[in-house]
Amino acid sequence: MTVRAGVVVTGTEVLTGRVTDRNGPWLAEQLRALGADVGRIVVVGDRPDDLEAALRHLMADHDLVVTSGGLGPTADDLTARVVGDVQGRPSELHEETYAVVRAVVDELMRRRGWTADPAAVDAGTRKQATVPVGAHVLPPVGTAPGLVVTPADGRDGPPVVVLPGPPSELRGMWPDAVAAPAVRAVLAGAPALLEDTVRLWGTLEADLAQSLRRVEDRLDGLEVSTCLRGGELEVVTRYAPDAADRLEVLRGALLTDFPRTVFSTDGSTVDDVVGDALVARGWTVAAAESCTGGLLGGRLTARSGSSAYVLGSVAAYANTAKTALLGVPAALVAEHGAVSPQVADAMADGARTAFGADVGIGVTGVAGPGGGTPERPVGTVHVAVAGPSGRRARTLHLPGGREQVRAITVTAALHEVRLLLAGDVTG
Amino acid sequence: MTVRAGVVVTGTEVLTGRVTDRNGPWLAEQLRALGADVGRIVVVGDRPDDLEAALRHLMADHDLVVTSGGLGPTADDLTARVVGDVQGRPSELHEETYAVVRAVVDELMRRRGWTADPAAVDAGTRKQATVPVGAHVLPPVGTAPGLVVTPADGRDGPPVVVLPGPPSELRGMWPDAVAAPAVRAVLAGAPALLEDTVRLWGTLEADLAQSLRRVEDRLDGLEVSTCLRGGELEVVTRYAPDAADRLEVLRGALLTDFPRTVFSTDGSTVDDVVGDALVARGWTVAAAESCTGGLLGGRLTARSGSSAYVLGSVAAYANTAKTALLGVPAALVAEHGAVSPQVADAMADGARTAFGADVGIGVTGVAGPGGGTPERPVGTVHVAVAGPSGRRARTLHLPGGREQVRAITVTAALHEVRLLLAGDVTG
Repeated sequence: MTVRAGVVVTGTEVLTGRVTDRNGPWLAEQLRALGADVGRIVVVGDRPDDLEAALRHLMADHDLVVTSGGLGPTADDLTARVVGDVQGRPSELHEETYAVVRAVVDELMRRRGWTADPAAVDAGTRKQATVPVGAHVLPPVGTAPGLVVTPADGRDGPPVVVLPGPPSELRGMWPDAVAAPAVRAVLAGAPALLEDTVRLWGTLEADLAQSLRRVEDRLDGLEVSTCLRGGELEVVTRYAPDAADRLEVLRGALLTDFPRTVFSTDGSTVDDVVGDALVARGWTVAAAESCTGGLLGGRLTARSGSSAYVLGSVAAYANTAKTALLGVPAALVAEHGAVSPQVADAMADGARTAFGADVGIGVTGVAGPGGGTPERPVGTVHVAVAGPSGRRARTLHLPGGREQVRAITVTAALHEVRLLLAGDVTG
Repeated sequence: MTVRAGVVVTGTEVLTGRVTDRNGPWLAEQLRALGADVGRIVVVGDRPDDLEAALRHLMADHDLVVTSGGLGPTADDLTARVVGDVQGRPSELHEETYAVVRAVVDELMRRRGWTADPAAVDAGTRKQATVPVGAHVLPPVGTAPGLVVTPADGRDGPPVVVLPGPPSELRGMWPDAVAAPAVRAVLAGAPALLEDTVRLWGTLEADLAQSLRRVEDRLDGLEVSTCLRGGELEVVTRYAPDAADRLEVLRGALLTDFPRTVFSTDGSTVDDVVGDALVARGWTVAAAESCTGGLLGGRLTARSGSSAYVLGSVAAYANTAKTALLGVPAALVAEHGAVSPQVADAMADGARTAFGADVGIGVTGVAGPGGGTPERPVGTVHVAVAGPSGRRARTLHLPGGREQVRAITVTAALHEVRLLLAGDVTG
């Protein structure tokens, strides 16, 4: 028996893209891991009518609905009230919750040294403690309590779990939400659904599609989805435990058809592969960046624990900085141009020397929209890596705007490091 | 008369969060600018049933529906077929479109020097050129054609605009989509809806809420939404042109109540304010980063044209790099610790000297999850800025995980630069 769950993400800031939603996909993954199938996420602004329509749409054919956002102290935070109305439970001040929220807010302001109009703070606190009658209240992680709201007596329908919008609060509250009796009752007996990920770098989507077509009639019961992002191809498969043999058919086909471009079969990212390989070799890495302006350093240090192998990065945006900080000869820049394979090579060497690193990365390119020439159009990027075991170099011609060119350049540089660490050196 | 538009974003990779959707919010903003009101975005995976349910949900009470994604060459790209089915138009190969897509694919592969199995490529091309009978075809920007699909004869309902998933393709195709007769007919006569944004740094959400409550009965016809992101508070108001006088009431209240923390009243970001102020003064900037690992440099160079005022950044992740590249005395690090106001100051000076910049930024902190101590818990960050007119320094105690601490640190550093440039110096 399939348990179906729907997600409603609220917030005009999310609807209009001023804030990127991370809660919807996170909730979808958590629910999937618990055996619930999530087919739809609805994003609505801070309008009661739209929120109500979204709730009614999902409640009509789902066993559980989870909302995020709209629990703050301001008047446009209206999720608790609307969910209560839909379930037939009017909202009123919950004294116990009011005391809890007040204590949290007092402590927060004391610790941070904040001051605010006490009447303003109390109005916000009362707003956050006003909840549907009879709702199961989840203790706040930040200042907002969460809720599990079941239909009022005599009504029918799924329970609605109401969670706050800040991702750290939502995630912190999730274990309590899942443990609530009404949620446990829905999820009891939901079948497990597993997920498998294979990642490729350097294979075309059309070739991947052809490979999948050749085995598709042997993949019964697998839900296979492919996507291209940042130049990587990802094949994600959801399957019930009893379809594991068919998953092996799929994985076997991918490894047979693309032995050189499959770089991850266990969910690891290129960041993980590079970080683990550096740790295994006991090597350090440093970068010298131009068009990426620091993003490569930012990505290398995004993993916690990266200080064990990342020494740093120089973003030498100005040519004088390439010479002063990285020792790139001014004559080399003058002869070949700042965007050239020669300068990328010298930057990789400069990063090794400047930081005393085992592996150096050099990146230079034209991110656009300005700066392109007929010989070096926007999207031209040179990546070089140098290490104790040899060197690699690659020239890329990337499509897209400034942001995309910079993002794919960072990913491409990580893949060059990965290949160097795997012993695939060219010089 | 209000024109209502709904958006459906397809793709299992979006539903599960492996790819962050940027199309839904972008489309919502475009439609709003054309006078259409977007209240809901529905995200669905690559399953025909869920896509169909989402389409029918929005088609029931909207005048226009726009989809993104699911037009690729692989079998899980099924948007065109499902939209056709819902509108009563079966899909078949469209010869003219087939020729167009084939020419695009051939040219793309030639230019990139790609090779692929011709049968694989042709199968993908045929898939992309198979469209609902009678649909209005929008020329491809990448390889996928878009569609405007109206209900078949004798049926009722809104037109559905079908656009590709890659943001650059979707955006490139948008003008043609808007110009299609069926879309023009819907949008004709839609009233304009304007948007206003005020941004604050350093005001608490509770104080903002109180300020809004004081004037709320004079804001009739305004749709005000507030949101907190990266430590900034944003007040976004949508309004019809005839409500401009009430907008001024709102803006006046904010400027009166928060004269020191409102930093943008014209939609500009802190990045814009800092970049424009640097250009106006003719000053250059350079950064020295530790816990942010390069993200501050990446953010400073995200604006096109930033090479006019950004010289670069040193991400000195290792302490030896702080000394070697930034001249931070090893004794200073030993005495006060790498995460200290003293080292942040020395890094700001080091950035000025190393790059020969007018303004230097120093950032050091504990991003976590490891590295915290009782005296310097995770989230402790020191920011220092130094310029020709003086200095500023600030210690932050940030909540959240590693990613959030790093992101807010970058924003906080930009605000310190902004305040320095505004002449608000403390040393």
